[in-house]
Amino acid sequence: MLAGLPPQIGLYSCIGPILLYAIFGTSKTLAVGPVGLMSLMVASAIAQLQLDDEIQILSVAMGLALISGGMLIIMHAFRFGYIVNFISHPVLSGFTSAAALIIAASQVKHLIGIDLPDSESISGFLSDVLILIQDQSFMTGAIGLISIGIMVVLKLSITDKILRRILAPVVYSIVSKSGPLLCVCFGVIVVSMNQLDVAENVAIVGHIPSGLPEFTIPELDWLLWKQVFPIAFVIAIVGFLESVSVAKALAGRRRQKISANQELLALGCANFGSAFSGGYPVAGGLGRSMVNFSSGANTQLSSVITALFIAFALLYLTPLLYYLPKSVLAAIIIVAVSGLLDIKSFQHVWAYDKSESACQIATFLGVLFLGIEWGILIGALMSIGFHLHRSSEPHIAIVGRVENTEHYRNIERHQVQTCSHVIALRVDENLYFANTSFLEDYILQVIADNPNAHHLVLICSAVNAIDSSALEFLDTLIQRLNYVGIRMHLAEVKGPIMDQIKKTTFIEDLNPGKVFLSTHEAMCTLNNELCD
Amino acid sequence: MLAGLPPQIGLYSCIGPILLYAIFGTSKTLAVGPVGLMSLMVASAIAQLQLDDEIQILSVAMGLALISGGMLIIMHAFRFGYIVNFISHPVLSGFTSAAALIIAASQVKHLIGIDLPDSESISGFLSDVLILIQDQSFMTGAIGLISIGIMVVLKLSITDKILRRILAPVVYSIVSKSGPLLCVCFGVIVVSMNQLDVAENVAIVGHIPSGLPEFTIPELDWLLWKQVFPIAFVIAIVGFLESVSVAKALAGRRRQKISANQELLALGCANFGSAFSGGYPVAGGLGRSMVNFSSGANTQLSSVITALFIAFALLYLTPLLYYLPKSVLAAIIIVAVSGLLDIKSFQHVWAYDKSESACQIATFLGVLFLGIEWGILIGALMSIGFHLHRSSEPHIAIVGRVENTEHYRNIERHQVQTCSHVIALRVDENLYFANTSFLEDYILQVIADNPNAHHLVLICSAVNAIDSSALEFLDTLIQRLNYVGIRMHLAEVKGPIMDQIKKTTFIEDLNPGKVFLSTHEAMCTLNNELCD
Repeated sequence: MLAGLPPQIGLYSCIGPILLYAIFGTSKTLAVGPVGLMSLMVASAIAQLQLDDEIQILSVAMGLALISGGMLIIMHAFRFGYIVNFISHPVLSGFTSAAALIIAASQVKHLIGIDLPDSESISGFLSDVLILIQDQSFMTGAIGLISIGIMVVLKLSITDKILRRILAPVVYSIVSKSGPLLCVCFGVIVVSMNQLDVAENVAIVGHIPSGLPEFTIPELDWLLWKQVFPIAFVIAIVGFLESVSVAKALAGRRRQKISANQELLALGCANFGSAFSGGYPVAGGLGRSMVNFSSGANTQLSSVITALFIAFALLYLTPLLYYLPKSVLAAIIIVAVSGLLDIKSFQHVWAYDKSESACQIATFLGVLFLGIEWGILIGALMSIGFHLHRSSEPHIAIVGRVENTEHYRNIERHQVQTCSHVIALRVDENLYFANTSFLEDYILQVIADNPNAHHLVLICSAVNAIDSSALEFLDTLIQRLNYVGIRMHLAEVKGPIMDQIKKTTFIEDLNPGKVFLSTHEAMCTLNNELCD
Repeated sequence: MLAGLPPQIGLYSCIGPILLYAIFGTSKTLAVGPVGLMSLMVASAIAQLQLDDEIQILSVAMGLALISGGMLIIMHAFRFGYIVNFISHPVLSGFTSAAALIIAASQVKHLIGIDLPDSESISGFLSDVLILIQDQSFMTGAIGLISIGIMVVLKLSITDKILRRILAPVVYSIVSKSGPLLCVCFGVIVVSMNQLDVAENVAIVGHIPSGLPEFTIPELDWLLWKQVFPIAFVIAIVGFLESVSVAKALAGRRRQKISANQELLALGCANFGSAFSGGYPVAGGLGRSMVNFSSGANTQLSSVITALFIAFALLYLTPLLYYLPKSVLAAIIIVAVSGLLDIKSFQHVWAYDKSESACQIATFLGVLFLGIEWGILIGALMSIGFHLHRSSEPHIAIVGRVENTEHYRNIERHQVQTCSHVIALRVDENLYFANTSFLEDYILQVIADNPNAHHLVLICSAVNAIDSSALEFLDTLIQRLNYVGIRMHLAEVKGPIMDQIKKTTFIEDLNPGKVFLSTHEAMCTLNNELCD
């Protein structure tokens, strides 16, 4: 209904996509279906096209699913799934925690049965709430809170111990996971027995039109297709990022793996499935996936059963669910997501690395206050920024010989032998455009601090790449050092870099400086000449 | 006049800024003053504010210089100059070459004295040009081409040899650089003697109002200030990026150095200077800096002399320059920039690294067809993208022992001893969020290829950082390897990383796997147990 479509379209969008995702997807717990973000984007597309005719609206919705599905499959062909590599672990965990809060908060109004007023001031808000509460029977809230109570009690470790002792193992494993089902039964029975929907105004699920979706071929004239193309593209990208973020976050919790590229195919097929069964664009839903995860689902079988159950329910069970109170659904969701607010992860990341912690907190706040896409985008860009920053100011160590060995170590961390005529520098980073300035400043400082030096050995054991900017910089450096009577040498240059350098005139420019195989060889050669 | 301001404002914007830049700037050749991009942005600000009153227009122009100057100084305080580190050498050289082409092309119409028509088709354009040429005396073009000829002949190596032989060294060094001055004299004399500006319609510089700029305090009411704030911000950023790009490109040609952060201060002061002497926002100009560079300027003294000469000229010389043909100026600029189209650099970068070459070509085409800012932005983002891509698919080597040594080398490049029970992997990259997927796939493949392996040693000699995503990944990997009976160990972990890892439970998770000081130690320990 959020998307401006009849309610059964949402249910139709559940069955086909879930089954197709189960075949192609790599997540064990991702639940595919109509999600809020997709619904809002479809609604905005319909509003933009200024359509009134319901048949045309439905055809646009199906067309969007078809086009975005096609785009996802094309992106799969181009291995576009690659980009999710750049969403780091702290960003994902910041996102999960914020999303858990958002979902829980969004369910509070259903739980207590109050539509929170949109007041201008806090005092106005409070008085509005008071009036609403006075008008309101407490029955809705009571049913919701009792449901939460049932589930929390069943999850307590003491309950667990008792159940494990008194029940047979098979019965135990069913009972221990039946909290949500118990609550549904409790809610339906209480409301239907006492007609609370009428007597106490408890919000219920109500009438759902029955019958299965039929195979449909989306129709759309070319002019409309052209207009919906850009929004279909946005739907495809946003849906993919949201789905993979959810899938990766949940997989990370269980040490499982997601193949982002395969997900493109799976989501593309799911959208195709939706389009051909009269649905609209789908994605991996955060809330339902978390419910799936928290109830212990460990293969897509759970999703398949969900799809079959939705089909079965559409055919036969709609009357039974008529009396299900919305507050029970809200309670189930709140309990499910509450375990995902992961404060420990924030502590761990904070202890490990402050800049990663900043990314995590920024993602958390971004998702909370700016929305999922912005939060993840900000976090991902910050991670990349910090990574670049770190590599642009690399760790550089002046090394000396560990006595009677061929090992050379940082003079600040170990007791080592050095020689005032030869400075041996180990740069612990690839040499590339972003760190040449830093390196230049560092080396010139070292030269200034060591007026007796005649040789500078650059140890490249930790250098895995030298780009053309850095090579240009080294060329310049050689000349500048020559002016002040210092000869530059390289040591431990890796094979692939050596191959690349040989394509240029660098080795000649370095001359009479040399490229040594090992630091020890360099130090022996240069010391024999100079030290004694 | 491009900025919608009276012409003398442009000259006023030259003197103060140049002197202040000479004090604070770090470039030897950057010529600061009113540039095209700044002029266009000022013009658009004035148009946006819908101002008609000339005094208000002047005050907005000065206000823009004042605010953007202030912003640059604030950015200096926050060390914002850092961002230019991310503009790589190929991007800079692509930019320089494209800019040289653009400037040369923009001068062609002045050189031949034809305003090129804005025709709709190529054939229309050609016929329009033909008509224009028929209407046109060839005098303007002739003066321009003769000027080019004078400068080219003076630059030929044969002329240089002859001059060097027949002239005293001091005279030689003056004569060899006097090409442009000779052309100016030639142009002024030819035109003024024959009244070519009237007789042959040769475009001349004409009347310049004389007199020095006066100290002015910019006035601007608060409402206007608020409105011009955003555009002043854009002017500050764009002016800074353009100036530093030009300065770095030219400094690179002479192995000199630019401090981007100091440039923020220098440009900020230059803009303040412009604001207080009745000018408008300034930046380092591409064309004038290149002329400066090509004529051999090697300190800001040349700029100071320029400023003094402009002041002197404003006072006394405007009548003498009245007859200077615009085509001579165009010829000087074309000859100056032609040396900056650096085709060799394209060849070198292409030979060294194809992806860097792509950045260079993209920048070149971007600057040519989309403008300076876009070209540089595209190039910088591509460089960063390729850098991230490279580090996300790192080089990994399986290593073996070089016989009778403690050295371990890539089994694909060297003749080495290996042991089927122990796999030693050297990852030539930092472990961070973007490469964990790649590493995971690689290691699982290696495990699958070596069914006899019981130990996996991860050699970290080239690993300079492990972020929390990678640590999480290693934790997962340890557990997965344990399932299949493989124990993981680390070797040659660097000091700073070890310090960081000790903050977590990783070492316990690794147990019974160990952290070895050297690869050799690891191989000896594990081989004694297993091999024989």
